[in-house]
Amino acid sequence: MGNFKEDIASVKAFVFDVDGVFTDGGIIPLPDGDFIRKYNAKDGYAIAFALRAGYKVCIITGGRGKTLELRFRTLGVTEFHSNVPDKVAVLKDFMDRNGLAREEVMFMGDDIPDLEAMQYSGMPVCPADSSVEILAVARYVSQYRGGEGCVRDVVEQTLRSQGRWAKDSYGVTTVPSA
Amino acid sequence: MGNFKEDIASVKAFVFDVDGVFTDGGIIPLPDGDFIRKYNAKDGYAIAFALRAGYKVCIITGGRGKTLELRFRTLGVTEFHSNVPDKVAVLKDFMDRNGLAREEVMFMGDDIPDLEAMQYSGMPVCPADSSVEILAVARYVSQYRGGEGCVRDVVEQTLRSQGRWAKDSYGVTTVPSA
Amino acid sequence: MGNFKEDIASVKAFVFDVDGVFTDGGIIPLPDGDFIRKYNAKDGYAIAFALRAGYKVCIITGGRGKTLELRFRTLGVTEFHSNVPDKVAVLKDFMDRNGLAREEVMFMGDDIPDLEAMQYSGMPVCPADSSVEILAVARYVSQYRGGEGCVRDVVEQTLRSQGRWAKDSYGVTTVPSA
Amino acid sequence: MGNFKEDIASVKAFVFDVDGVFTDGGIIPLPDGDFIRKYNAKDGYAIAFALRAGYKVCIITGGRGKTLELRFRTLGVTEFHSNVPDKVAVLKDFMDRNGLAREEVMFMGDDIPDLEAMQYSGMPVCPADSSVEILAVARYVSQYRGGEGCVRDVVEQTLRSQGRWAKDSYGVTTVPSA
Repeated sequence: MGNFKEDIASVKAFVFDVDGVFTDGGIIPLPDGDFIRKYNAKDGYAIAFALRAGYKVCIITGGRGKTLELRFRTLGVTEFHSNVPDKVAVLKDFMDRNGLAREEVMFMGDDIPDLEAMQYSGMPVCPADSSVEILAVARYVSQYRGGEGCVRDVVEQTLRSQGRWAKDSYGVTTVPSA
Repeated sequence: MGNFKEDIASVKAFVFDVDGVFTDGGIIPLPDGDFIRKYNAKDGYAIAFALRAGYKVCIITGGRGKTLELRFRTLGVTEFHSNVPDKVAVLKDFMDRNGLAREEVMFMGDDIPDLEAMQYSGMPVCPADSSVEILAVARYVSQYRGGEGCVRDVVEQTLRSQGRWAKDSYGVTTVPSA
Repeated sequence: MGNFKEDIASVKAFVFDVDGVFTDGGIIPLPDGDFIRKYNAKDGYAIAFALRAGYKVCIITGGRGKTLELRFRTLGVTEFHSNVPDKVAVLKDFMDRNGLAREEVMFMGDDIPDLEAMQYSGMPVCPADSSVEILAVARYVSQYRGGEGCVRDVVEQTLRSQGRWAKDSYGVTTVPSA
Repeated sequence: MGNFKEDIASVKAFVFDVDGVFTDGGIIPLPDGDFIRKYNAKDGYAIAFALRAGYKVCIITGGRGKTLELRFRTLGVTEFHSNVPDKVAVLKDFMDRNGLAREEVMFMGDDIPDLEAMQYSGMPVCPADSSVEILAVARYVSQYRGGEGCVRDVVEQTLRSQGRWAKDSYGVTTVPSA
């Protein structure tokens, strides 16, 4: 395990948990049994930008709700896995299908259900307000909390380290679905 | 009354108010007369985990709204009491039915309607932003505000003191309904 | 104009704006043209308590939306005036009908449309995050921002100064509609 | 390029992005595919006031959703452009149709899709929590974050510099649609 700033130069794929990462952990149940959540436009821009620039993006969440999938589909994410009890299995399958080595995969999670999968990835990272178990294993702790730009932070830093952030718009001229 | 860190080793049951404890006190009325509230995924994980580990969890709230019950049922809570005018009566009945002594019950509330019931429990605790009347009687004031992880804080501390936090997943591998 | 702590001993009625006072100023338009807002449970408790203790409570807002009225009706407020272009006229009429002198009326507002009515009341008060025009005329600036307990703060302080806060429950044992 | 406080004396028109400017960047997808956002009443007052005082206000956003347009129509905005891939083209057309010179136009944006249009306007300004690319080109960075009053801040400062803030109500006696 080398220097973080050097090691992110190998990252080709981003895997994310949702609650507490793309959101502040807030879940609003609706009377009909579905849920709504508040996402962040700057995170959304980073995801759409990374996808257009050729990076793989995969969502692995234990959460449920119709709007979860709607959000990520609008951003262009096709690797979307919800209601997942075993995150490591889904992560390994995603890596196998895409021929990704562990050091090529960054995983951002914030709580105990992410722990094992984060450690399987070569680049475990987390929001500032993660649980102590997660903070203990993360190679990088964003200064931003969940829902307040931590996703943007790690995507932007990674693409910058590879000279690909904001050098070309890759056709992403709006904040998609925002 | 002994040391807090020692005394929580006796806790077998958690009783919670909802507004201002699981939430920041925010209530969003809907045009049809129901209400929605924002819950916290990390709190939800702690509740589901404690239930699986064999602890009793009981909700006693003066609040109403269909989503209130939906939220706690999804987490696995069966002792759910809403629209309650007399919290002490419900608390005593819960303790009687479960054979719980006062020192085995932790009660977290944040405002005057919780005052009497909190004092009846052997372990009154509260969020950082509780009313002055509650702050005055709490044996422990969480550093977290309502809705920002105060439930997770007290559940986690209690289970840690008993050597049961995150040692075994008890089958809780996701943040339920999150 | 005497000392604030002494002068609030004369207050018998509370008049409030809504947006930026009971809320953080946040307005969420719904696709059907209505609006939702987030209210605070501790503020709601104070309003219900003051009404039961015999104080007059009057809402005067330029805002609209079905949930606005629902919220205050549930708390027991009968003097509810929405979509009001001229707040002073409504205030004067409320005071006349209830035989209230100016020094008996506290008015809490946060922005320019409240300015004239606040100055007509004998006791203009405001949240911490009010506009500069309002901060300039308020006799008391709460340490709490709109939606974060500023209503609770001024109601609690006033009733305490009159020896009526939390001495008797007046039958208010829950946070109404919370 | 002269002094900011002097230069805003020439501003006759305000152009705004929405997400991250009128809001904290938060987007809440609904189960039916639409979105809701939280706006700020004090920003709304400033927009309605500026329009009544004769200023031009134009919204240019890459975002979508029925409530977006509802919000701005209620405030009196007629120049509303959503789902815009090329903001500069829309800006130039707006300026041409209204005979506006670059130094007469203030543009407030917060992220990369606003960059080119902001630089085309003579007065690029931004919220405190803008992306680094935007912070680098803004002539003024508001102390307020998106959704927390940054729109009110720049409108109020501009009108004050021209002696037109709160000197006359222009008939704006309520916070419209708030």
